Amino acid sequence: MSSTAGQVIKCKAAISWEAAKPLVIEEVEVAPPQAGEVRLKILYTSLCHTDVYFWEAKGQTPLFPRIFGHEAGGIVESVGEGVTHLKPGDHALPVFTGECGECPHCKSEESNLCDLLRINTDRGVMINGGQSRFSIKGKPIYHFLGTSTFSEYTVVHAGCVAKVNPDAPLDKICVLSCGICTGLGATVNVAKPKPGSSVAIFGLGAVGLAAAEGARISGASRIIGVDLVSSRFELAKKFGVNEFVNPKDHDKPVQQVIAELTNGGVDRAVECTGSIQAMVSAFECVHDGWGVAVLVGVPNKDDAFKTHPMNFLNERTLKGTFYGNYKPRTDLPGVVEKYMKGELELEKFITHSIPFSEINKAFDYMLKGEAIRCIIRMEE
Amino acid sequence: MSSTAGQVIKCKAAISWEAAKPLVIEEVEVAPPQAGEVRLKILYTSLCHTDVYFWEAKGQTPLFPRIFGHEAGGIVESVGEGVTHLKPGDHALPVFTGECGECPHCKSEESNLCDLLRINTDRGVMINGGQSRFSIKGKPIYHFLGTSTFSEYTVVHAGCVAKVNPDAPLDKICVLSCGICTGLGATVNVAKPKPGSSVAIFGLGAVGLAAAEGARISGASRIIGVDLVSSRFELAKKFGVNEFVNPKDHDKPVQQVIAELTNGGVDRAVECTGSIQAMVSAFECVHDGWGVAVLVGVPNKDDAFKTHPMNFLNERTLKGTFYGNYKPRTDLPGVVEKYMKGELELEKFITHSIPFSEINKAFDYMLKGEAIRCIIRMEE
Repeated sequence: MSSTAGQVIKCKAAISWEAAKPLVIEEVEVAPPQAGEVRLKILYTSLCHTDVYFWEAKGQTPLFPRIFGHEAGGIVESVGEGVTHLKPGDHALPVFTGECGECPHCKSEESNLCDLLRINTDRGVMINGGQSRFSIKGKPIYHFLGTSTFSEYTVVHAGCVAKVNPDAPLDKICVLSCGICTGLGATVNVAKPKPGSSVAIFGLGAVGLAAAEGARISGASRIIGVDLVSSRFELAKKFGVNEFVNPKDHDKPVQQVIAELTNGGVDRAVECTGSIQAMVSAFECVHDGWGVAVLVGVPNKDDAFKTHPMNFLNERTLKGTFYGNYKPRTDLPGVVEKYMKGELELEKFITHSIPFSEINKAFDYMLKGEAIRCIIRMEE
Repeated sequence: MSSTAGQVIKCKAAISWEAAKPLVIEEVEVAPPQAGEVRLKILYTSLCHTDVYFWEAKGQTPLFPRIFGHEAGGIVESVGEGVTHLKPGDHALPVFTGECGECPHCKSEESNLCDLLRINTDRGVMINGGQSRFSIKGKPIYHFLGTSTFSEYTVVHAGCVAKVNPDAPLDKICVLSCGICTGLGATVNVAKPKPGSSVAIFGLGAVGLAAAEGARISGASRIIGVDLVSSRFELAKKFGVNEFVNPKDHDKPVQQVIAELTNGGVDRAVECTGSIQAMVSAFECVHDGWGVAVLVGVPNKDDAFKTHPMNFLNERTLKGTFYGNYKPRTDLPGVVEKYMKGELELEKFITHSIPFSEINKAFDYMLKGEAIRCIIRMEE
């Protein structure tokens, strides 16, 4: 039992007071976890594009003041009533989506879209009681994605916390909380390329590179990166990408370019941009008879996916995935073990590391496109 | 070796001299099979909607005079050079699509879209030599789908002929050559519903009923038939359909009606109409997280499949299939065995039986919507 259990903890957090303005590190009060919740001491967190997206709040409902952050690694400080799978001292990854274990989705082997703990970007409070656990001088500060890891301590629903091997370095495995698993799982869990096969990856950002890493781990022999920025190919080579197509370099549709390169189409395609045009291209560039395309990138609200139905009837498959189809609590420990065995290489994704006090630099790196992942060290 | 091997055979065939006009039974000369071909004595054939479609030639390139027919059972009369998997006397089913065994599709476990012998509705001649094997007084008569089973003898590419158990009654298993396998395989090979699951079948014609039969065999507990003709429900009950939705009876989209009936959507949907609206509904009525929709019906040339990409991202899968993903030579013998063991009930599909001399009646039954399958007995 930690000495802080049941007490309000005062600690530092990076507060986003308004859209697109630098975060301010200040003292916040973190209430104890309630039933079914866990309070975590965050040791490392990293910045994902989704944080930036909601911080900019261009297309989203603004919800401020808020504590962002959803990729992190930490240690359980205390647990609320009824929490049995975690105890103080456990090493843990908080995740922006959860696993209640009871709903039809959790009971299905095929789905990770938990009815209770599915991602909710609009909710700024805890499910249990509908209030925030963060406050500054009595004024509540909103949560983000149920994780809010830009704080030395945070409260998370226990269903959103994966217990992991305590030997695993949290400053590396913290990136598994979101983007890396999203891309990796899209390939290894959903597209499932066979050894020796060809895979096209649309978009070579963090998620796309993780999808490429999944193709590399699966033994794909041709990994074709597709991106509008040709300079990304160089870095992508580290992740197994061995061919590159920039749609801007061609007059014909990129699906046709890829079909010509691959004698009729790739075996698998993974779409990691969210562009509707890329989604259609990713689907139409897979081979008839056996091709599978997987959508990962999040589209705009008014997008429509449109293709000729014969593209399906010629035995192509189109699937979508969320968080790489990983069930956070059940599956993340296994992904950590893949890293521990050296199968999955996480170091390649980590391009920057900064102390918590410089957190705004992580936003700069991301906005300039310089970082894949920037680790933020909570203990300087 | 049969006494007719290597000789031209004179026999009766039902000739379609022009679009939508009654067939005329007359004497035709059937040339011997060339290299890689087989000459079959047809014992039973049945009429499929595709025959009617090309006979009407409303939207298709007219190709007359032609011998239609592509669902049949017969006995090998003689084989051409290089044919090793069939010999005279073998019981066999000719199929409108084939399996060369050599192309990337045949070598893939996942595809049956043989590069060489894939369906070709425009071709009226044999691949080998580009000529017809049928003639009347020296005038060539076109083939249809490489099968032309409305003839006492026909010549078929050996890759399009499945050797089957000689104990199996050809007057029953002949229906496996096309529609029944198309629907059955769409469910058992592609949608793969689990025991106890829910399946929606769009379109309760022969293919849809076969898809329902596949759901019944798979142990699905809710099989929801969707059709614009409510009277079809009664017959469909025999095939396991135990709920019925007529989209015309509802103000809201049928996918919404089905989602409400099934607490969020069915586990699997199989689309057997070819209507683009039904395709979209079939996809959108499957449950998020695990739902799989399979397209079977052939769309119009200018159709576009359109849906919001979030429907995919919420972990729905859309696949298409051709001939139920069965490889004709490899897989049909196993389907015949399923019938022999009593797992697959073919008798339910056979609503009529007529002698060859009355073949035009089969067209009448089909056009009036009275028949699922009408067997045509070549030997009166």
